Amino acid sequence: MTTSLLLNCDMGESFGAWTMGNDALAMPLIDQANLACGYHAGDPLTMQRSVALAVQHGVSIGAHPAYPDLQGFGRRHMSCTSDEVRALVLYQVGALEAFCRAAGTQVAYVKPHGALYNDLVRDDALFAAVLDACASYRAGLPLMVLALADNRREVRLAEAAGVPLLFEAFADRAYQSDGQLAPRRLPGAVHHEPQRILDQALAIARGEPFADIDGKPLRLRADSLCVHGDNPDALSVLRRLRAHLDAT
Amino acid sequence: MTTSLLLNCDMGESFGAWTMGNDALAMPLIDQANLACGYHAGDPLTMQRSVALAVQHGVSIGAHPAYPDLQGFGRRHMSCTSDEVRALVLYQVGALEAFCRAAGTQVAYVKPHGALYNDLVRDDALFAAVLDACASYRAGLPLMVLALADNRREVRLAEAAGVPLLFEAFADRAYQSDGQLAPRRLPGAVHHEPQRILDQALAIARGEPFADIDGKPLRLRADSLCVHGDNPDALSVLRRLRAHLDAT
Amino acid sequence: MTTSLLLNCDMGESFGAWTMGNDALAMPLIDQANLACGYHAGDPLTMQRSVALAVQHGVSIGAHPAYPDLQGFGRRHMSCTSDEVRALVLYQVGALEAFCRAAGTQVAYVKPHGALYNDLVRDDALFAAVLDACASYRAGLPLMVLALADNRREVRLAEAAGVPLLFEAFADRAYQSDGQLAPRRLPGAVHHEPQRILDQALAIARGEPFADIDGKPLRLRADSLCVHGDNPDALSVLRRLRAHLDAT
Amino acid sequence: MTTSLLLNCDMGESFGAWTMGNDALAMPLIDQANLACGYHAGDPLTMQRSVALAVQHGVSIGAHPAYPDLQGFGRRHMSCTSDEVRALVLYQVGALEAFCRAAGTQVAYVKPHGALYNDLVRDDALFAAVLDACASYRAGLPLMVLALADNRREVRLAEAAGVPLLFEAFADRAYQSDGQLAPRRLPGAVHHEPQRILDQALAIARGEPFADIDGKPLRLRADSLCVHGDNPDALSVLRRLRAHLDAT
Repeated sequence: MTTSLLLNCDMGESFGAWTMGNDALAMPLIDQANLACGYHAGDPLTMQRSVALAVQHGVSIGAHPAYPDLQGFGRRHMSCTSDEVRALVLYQVGALEAFCRAAGTQVAYVKPHGALYNDLVRDDALFAAVLDACASYRAGLPLMVLALADNRREVRLAEAAGVPLLFEAFADRAYQSDGQLAPRRLPGAVHHEPQRILDQALAIARGEPFADIDGKPLRLRADSLCVHGDNPDALSVLRRLRAHLDAT
Repeated sequence: MTTSLLLNCDMGESFGAWTMGNDALAMPLIDQANLACGYHAGDPLTMQRSVALAVQHGVSIGAHPAYPDLQGFGRRHMSCTSDEVRALVLYQVGALEAFCRAAGTQVAYVKPHGALYNDLVRDDALFAAVLDACASYRAGLPLMVLALADNRREVRLAEAAGVPLLFEAFADRAYQSDGQLAPRRLPGAVHHEPQRILDQALAIARGEPFADIDGKPLRLRADSLCVHGDNPDALSVLRRLRAHLDAT
Repeated sequence: MTTSLLLNCDMGESFGAWTMGNDALAMPLIDQANLACGYHAGDPLTMQRSVALAVQHGVSIGAHPAYPDLQGFGRRHMSCTSDEVRALVLYQVGALEAFCRAAGTQVAYVKPHGALYNDLVRDDALFAAVLDACASYRAGLPLMVLALADNRREVRLAEAAGVPLLFEAFADRAYQSDGQLAPRRLPGAVHHEPQRILDQALAIARGEPFADIDGKPLRLRADSLCVHGDNPDALSVLRRLRAHLDAT
Repeated sequence: MTTSLLLNCDMGESFGAWTMGNDALAMPLIDQANLACGYHAGDPLTMQRSVALAVQHGVSIGAHPAYPDLQGFGRRHMSCTSDEVRALVLYQVGALEAFCRAAGTQVAYVKPHGALYNDLVRDDALFAAVLDACASYRAGLPLMVLALADNRREVRLAEAAGVPLLFEAFADRAYQSDGQLAPRRLPGAVHHEPQRILDQALAIARGEPFADIDGKPLRLRADSLCVHGDNPDALSVLRRLRAHLDAT
């Protein structure tokens, strides 16, 4: 079994007077923190504190750029042009990196958030725009994308842009046969039983097949597992997962 | 006469569908462009285009951070804490630098905008917060501040923070005897006659005294002159000024 | 010929320090002003001034609600739910009506803006949400929609909601055979010659057919014509159009 | 003892994905809900739900307008002009009233939020602007202000504008001798012991004197008491307070 599966978590999603998540509890358990950059969450002070917390725990910092939609938390698709997307990714990566610089570190990768993340699946021009933002910002800055049964499209576009990819998988979501996430509206799309989540996580960590939403075996090659820490149940699963991965 | 007086101009102040200024006409005439960073003006695409225009004309790029107030164009004082100000300056400098990096350059200095600029005069903690943002972002990143008859306060605070200062003066504004700008509501606070503006500019360039609002001589040591290019009259004065400075 | 064709114009689209349009010049020439309500343009002071200008010229005031997207001027589609759309329309109609009340008048109709306007064509649930917002706000508050060759869908949905419809047409846009606007990217989609615009306007005013984008005759039943006043050419056409309509 | 003291509470302070407060638990216990209107909190759907909850429990709805500062939750002073303040109050009152109309009710009063509330104490022009917004919106619409030892200034300005006043007091805050709230930074400025809060509330309800921050007796004439329900302790005090008031 590979012990190289990392754990990443969306963090820094507070905004002003509003708090979201349990970053202080989850940060010690993860390897990579995807930090909101002000467009869907994350005011400047929240970003500064999130960077400090990540540095304190030796956690790698990823920029988590989104469509400009505080009211919708970046979950609503917006018909932005490729030029607009390239520019809004650059803007947010740079903004986050300022706090990284002030803390003696730098943005280690980029993971688009919410609707922007989802839109990359269908739209090559949008995907190329995000890749170009990464490449333009810093040679070698990786982009984190969804691990699929077949990622040749993503690899081809990323190689053309000279951008390394990080593949992420989910342990608490059911998959379609091609490795796309089953839409949340489908029954069984989200796993709630801790053991089920743990089993899927360990299968992914070992590179072994697990059951997709139709019960058929699916195998994913992933670098990182997207985890949650925003409620006691999630934290409990996360602690067990961390212990399992550390023990291997 | 010194020929080292530079010309700086607030630019990149369009936002989305709204256009402001004549950046394409003014950019060839100036040395330093203070570019809005999204908080009072300047969406990501505007920032990208403004950086490209500055690079094309060999103009140095300054970050022009502001209070978060699009509706008020950053001209309204907001009672932000020092921590908030440090963080919002870092955020905006980083955001602008992303476009500079993508264009092969970097932010050359920081000049706070509007109400934030004005608030620095009175508030040492706020001034220290902006200095700390500059120093934290990059060692040696200069801060542009108002040239006064006596800048010992600013020099003292800047030296404590290890931040170089750039002093700017105004040719189209009347001064009080201490080198503070006369408030706009006072009669005679703004010069409108081109020759008057030109004369004051050249006096500043030569390090010679000129008349303050009470007619008394005032001498300022300035590195840069803040100019405007947002209307035909301003552009005309700017062209004459550029010609004078180039001829010296 | 009917003399009842009204002229409506998008107005109040300034925001803070940014000015858009020539409302003072166009207002005396129109019958209905569609006023931005803060989500794509129109800060509170702009709204107050726009209402005052409309009242001064006896112009009927329409609310012009949009998706929450200042940066994109409400022109970008956002995947809002029907509940979100109903609520954001109510919010903006109410906000504008406050200025109408303070000026002794009220919102006379609702015309969605930009991407929201376009999305109504395809999405019955969204259309029903906007209708419900109108009906919930005030019994009899009309909704302005695009006049098509066949508006039975819109009439059916509006009757179910008990909302009167106002149909608007365009004199400077080419139409498809079903009365949908030809997409702007197509050659010939926008008319630029003043006489062509005037001819199409008068045909619509008289209920006579005019040529669609393929040259085939199209007849539209419209209550109002959407006009522009944001540049000298548009104002010139608007003045001639006003004179023609007044002469009939 | 008068039984007429009402309980008011700031509510509807969630925004998009962020939740604040326990409105569902506190609403049954209060008489007046001050609902955020989108400028410091409260997106349209939150406003709609908050209005529905208030209507369900027969709670009177107040508009809670603020400076345009989501990031600072309306707690930061902004140097808005009187014209700007009048317009931003109108905007927010109208926006909230739209949801009230759709629910068959209306805005019953206006209570400015945060920094705007505080700024009214010192600035007659600002106070007059808010009064004018109320009077312009609807004759007889009351404004809620801080009950002081001497409210003659507020009464004089309100009578000039023809606006009824509602006076509110606080049971969990220490007062200065003039009835201004003791600044939060002072020791003892906020009461934490439930019995102390309850005693001050009942003194205010009975029109009896209670101890100010220096231990001297202070008597306030108040129509309403500002209560909190955002944590279990506050809810517990609120329940006891409700029971006491209902028993009198």
